[in-house]
Amino acid sequence: MKLDALAQVIGARLIGDGALDVTRVRAIDEAGEGDLGFAADPRELRLVSTTKATAVLVPEGFAAEHAHELDCAVLCAEPASRALASAIEALYPQPHKPEGISERAVVDKNAKIGAHVTIGACAVIEKASIGARVKIGALAYVGEDVVIGDESIIGVGAVVLPGARIGARVVVGPGSVIGDEGFVYAPDQSRNVRVRHVAGVVIDDDAEIGANACVDRGALRDTHVGRGTKVDNLAQIGHDVVVGEDAVIVAQVGIAGDARVGDAAVLAGQAGVKERAVIGNGARVGGQAGVIHDIEPGQAVMGTPAIPHLTWLRMMTRLREIDALEKRVRALETRE
Amino acid sequence: MKLDALAQVIGARLIGDGALDVTRVRAIDEAGEGDLGFAADPRELRLVSTTKATAVLVPEGFAAEHAHELDCAVLCAEPASRALASAIEALYPQPHKPEGISERAVVDKNAKIGAHVTIGACAVIEKASIGARVKIGALAYVGEDVVIGDESIIGVGAVVLPGARIGARVVVGPGSVIGDEGFVYAPDQSRNVRVRHVAGVVIDDDAEIGANACVDRGALRDTHVGRGTKVDNLAQIGHDVVVGEDAVIVAQVGIAGDARVGDAAVLAGQAGVKERAVIGNGARVGGQAGVIHDIEPGQAVMGTPAIPHLTWLRMMTRLREIDALEKRVRALETRE
Amino acid sequence: MKLDALAQVIGARLIGDGALDVTRVRAIDEAGEGDLGFAADPRELRLVSTTKATAVLVPEGFAAEHAHELDCAVLCAEPASRALASAIEALYPQPHKPEGISERAVVDKNAKIGAHVTIGACAVIEKASIGARVKIGALAYVGEDVVIGDESIIGVGAVVLPGARIGARVVVGPGSVIGDEGFVYAPDQSRNVRVRHVAGVVIDDDAEIGANACVDRGALRDTHVGRGTKVDNLAQIGHDVVVGEDAVIVAQVGIAGDARVGDAAVLAGQAGVKERAVIGNGARVGGQAGVIHDIEPGQAVMGTPAIPHLTWLRMMTRLREIDALEKRVRALETRE
Repeated sequence: MKLDALAQVIGARLIGDGALDVTRVRAIDEAGEGDLGFAADPRELRLVSTTKATAVLVPEGFAAEHAHELDCAVLCAEPASRALASAIEALYPQPHKPEGISERAVVDKNAKIGAHVTIGACAVIEKASIGARVKIGALAYVGEDVVIGDESIIGVGAVVLPGARIGARVVVGPGSVIGDEGFVYAPDQSRNVRVRHVAGVVIDDDAEIGANACVDRGALRDTHVGRGTKVDNLAQIGHDVVVGEDAVIVAQVGIAGDARVGDAAVLAGQAGVKERAVIGNGARVGGQAGVIHDIEPGQAVMGTPAIPHLTWLRMMTRLREIDALEKRVRALETRE
Repeated sequence: MKLDALAQVIGARLIGDGALDVTRVRAIDEAGEGDLGFAADPRELRLVSTTKATAVLVPEGFAAEHAHELDCAVLCAEPASRALASAIEALYPQPHKPEGISERAVVDKNAKIGAHVTIGACAVIEKASIGARVKIGALAYVGEDVVIGDESIIGVGAVVLPGARIGARVVVGPGSVIGDEGFVYAPDQSRNVRVRHVAGVVIDDDAEIGANACVDRGALRDTHVGRGTKVDNLAQIGHDVVVGEDAVIVAQVGIAGDARVGDAAVLAGQAGVKERAVIGNGARVGGQAGVIHDIEPGQAVMGTPAIPHLTWLRMMTRLREIDALEKRVRALETRE
Repeated sequence: MKLDALAQVIGARLIGDGALDVTRVRAIDEAGEGDLGFAADPRELRLVSTTKATAVLVPEGFAAEHAHELDCAVLCAEPASRALASAIEALYPQPHKPEGISERAVVDKNAKIGAHVTIGACAVIEKASIGARVKIGALAYVGEDVVIGDESIIGVGAVVLPGARIGARVVVGPGSVIGDEGFVYAPDQSRNVRVRHVAGVVIDDDAEIGANACVDRGALRDTHVGRGTKVDNLAQIGHDVVVGEDAVIVAQVGIAGDARVGDAAVLAGQAGVKERAVIGNGARVGGQAGVIHDIEPGQAVMGTPAIPHLTWLRMMTRLREIDALEKRVRALETRE
C-alpha cells in the first residue's frame, strides 16, 4: 500500500515520500525493505535511527523531534498504537468467510442458530441460542440455555457452561471456562459442604476473555464482566464478582468472590483482590499487588497489602536503606 | 416454600410469619418480594435493614440484636452458610436425571462402566473403570487404567490421564488436568533431561478440584489429594505432593513438588509453597504468601517468606512508618 | 534388574552386592524389598539410614561418608538425578507403539501427516504439516498451517492455533494453548480496541510446555521459546516474548509482552516479568519475584521489585527486626 494512502486510512501524518510502498508491519528492529516498522515505547524508539524499514510509525512527539534525522519515511499519530491497529487492518484485510457448521460438530436439534454462524469440528452445542455471524471454535462447548450475541467468538476448546449469557462481539479465548460454580463451602462439623450456586454469569458486549481463564457463575448474584472489559490469559474472576466497563485485567490476576472492580480500572499481572473488596472506577492496581482493603476511584496502588503507589515507592526506597539505617542507629547508640 | 417449613428443613430459628412464602435465594441487596435474602459478612449485614426481601437468613448473633428492627421475617442459624446450603437444596431441588451415554461419546469397548453413568458428547473414555452414577462432561478425557469411584463428576473438557485414581463423590472441574508428569529434570551437561514419572496420582473421596487446575502425578511417590479437600480454579499441585484431608486450597495457589499440606490447612489465593516444604495440620497461609520453611500445625502465616501472621502485621505497620523512622534518626544525628 | 547391570547402564558406582535384584524406583521412605530408593535432597538423605529398600541411589558425596553404615546396597552418581532418569529408563522400558490415527479423529484431507504418527480420538487436525512419529492426544487441536517437527508430543486437549511452528521432540502439555493473540489494545477514546497480531509463535526443538499453560503469538515479532527450554504448568508467556535456550520457567510464572529471557535463565514459581524487561543469560529469578528492571546475566534476584538475592536476604533480616529498631530509636530519643 502506498504510504500516502495508508496515512490517510489510519489518520497519520506523513513525512517523506508518499509513493513508497509497504506490505507488512514489523517490530522496529526486524523491519526491512517494504515494511512499516513500529516504535512507541522509549526502548523501541532508541532503535528507530538504525532501522532498515521503508517507513516507521511513531508517536507525534518523537516525529517532531527526530523525523528530519531519519532516512526512512515517517508516519506519526497520537496515540501511535491506535494508528498501528488501523494499519494492520488496512494491510492485512481479513476475508469474511463464514465457514458454516462442521459436519463433525454436535449441535442439539433444538439449538437456535443465527445466520452465517461458524462451528468447528467436535464442538458440542446444547440447546442454546447463538446469534448471527458467531464463530465457535473446534472442540468448544456451549451448554444448555446459553445465549450468545451477534458476532461473538468462542475459542477452540472454550467451555461455556449452562445458562451463561454472552453479549455481542464478545471473545472467549481458547480453553477458558465460563460459568463454573465458585469456591463457596459451608462448614459442617469438620467438613466443608458445597453451597450450590443459584445465580448466573454475564459477559457483556465487547468484553474479551483470554485463554485458559476462568469466570465463575454467581452464588447469589450474577457474576458480571462489563461492556468492553478485557481479561487476559489465566485470570480468575470469582463468583458474584461485578466488574465494570472498559476495565483491564491482565494475565494471572485473581479476583476473589463478591469483589467489585470499577469502570476503566486496570489490574496489572498477577495482582490479587480479596473477597468483597471494592476497587473504584479508574483505579490502577500494580503487578502482583494484593488488594485487601477498598481502593478509591482513580487511586494507583502497589504492594501487599496494596497501598498508594507513591507511598509504596518511598517505602521501598527506605527499605532498601534499612541496613544503613540500622548502622546509623548503632552509631548513635555508641556515640557519647 | 412456607417459611416455617423451610426453617425446619434447614435447621434455622424463625422470627416472624411462618406462612410467608419464598421461592428464591438472592444476595441481600438484590432480594425482593418472594426472595430469601442472605447476609453473613459484616458488609452484607449492613444492608439488611434496607432489604426488600420477604425474609432474610442471617447469623444467630445478628438476629438476636437486630431482628426486632426489621420489617421482614428472619431466619437465623449458626453458621448461617450451612443453613444457606440447605435452603438452596430445599428451594432448588435437582432432578436426578441420568442422561445416559451420548452416542457421540467415544468409549473403549473394554471400559468398565457402572450403572446410571452419564457421558457427554465427544467425551473420550479409554479402557478405564467408571463407578455408578458418575457424570462425565462433554469433551472430557478419561485415560487407560483410570479408576473413578461412584457419583463422581468429571467436568466438561477435563483431562484425567492414564492411571489416575479418583475416589467417590469427587469433582474434577472443567478443563482441569489430572495426572500429567511433573516438572522434574536432571542436568545433563548444559541441557535438562526429563525424569520420567513412575508413580501416580490419587484424588480421594469427596475432594473437589476447580476449573483449569493441574494436579501432577508423582515421580517416585503418588501425588495425593486427601479426602474432602477442596482445590480452587487454576491451582497447581506438583508431583509427589501429599495434601491431607479437608484442606482448602484457593485459586491460583501453587504447591511445588514433594511438599506436604496437613489436614484442614487453608492456603489462600495465589499463595506459593516451595518444594519439600511441610505445612502442618490446620495451618493457615495468607493470600500471596510464599512458604519457604515448614509451617507448624495451627500456625497462621503471611508474606514472602511467610512468617507468623501477627509478626507480619506488626512488621508491615512499622514498615509503613519507615520514612518517619528515618527522619527520627536524622533528628537524633543532628541533635547534640 | 541385577544391580551390577543397572550400575553399568546408568553410570553409577556400586557399593554392595551386585547380584541383588531391583524392579522399581520409589521415594526413599516408601521403598521396600526389591525397590531402588532414591535420595538426593538433605531431607531425603536423612531417611536413608532407615530405608527398607534393597538398594539406594544417592549422590557420591553422601555415599563416600555413609555407605559403610547402611544395610542396603548403594548406587552413587553425580548428579544422582541424572542417574535416576537413566535408572527409570532401564527399569521401565517404554514400548514404542505407534497407535495410528483414530478413526474418530478429524483430520483435514490436505493435512501432511508423517510416518508412524499417532492421533487420538476427537483430535481435530486442520491443513497442517505433522512430522514423523508425532503423537497427538485425544481432543487436541492443530490449526491450519501449523508445522510440527518429528517426535513431538501434543497433549490431550492441547490447542495449537493456526500458523504456530513447533520443532522436533517438543512437548506441548495437556490443555495448553499455543498461539492465541496477546493482550494488546490501543486506546480509542474511552474504549480499547484490539491490535490484531501479524507475527507468529515458534517453539523450538526439545522445548517442553506443561499443562494448561499459554504461549501467545507475537503482535509484530514472533514469540519464541528457545531450544531445550522447559515451561511448567499454568505459565503465561506473552506476545513478542523471546526466551533463549535451556531456560527453566516454573509453574504459574508470567512473562509480559516483549520481555526477553536469556539462555539457561531460571524463573522460579509464580515469578512475574514486566513488559519489555530483559533477563540476562543464566540469571535466576526467585519464586514470586517481580522483575521490573533488567536483570544482568548470571544475577540472582528476589522480591518485588526484584533485587539481588543477597541484598534481599539482608533486607528481609533487618526488616524482621524493624520493631526492635524502632524501640532502639525511641530509647535514644528519651535518653539524656
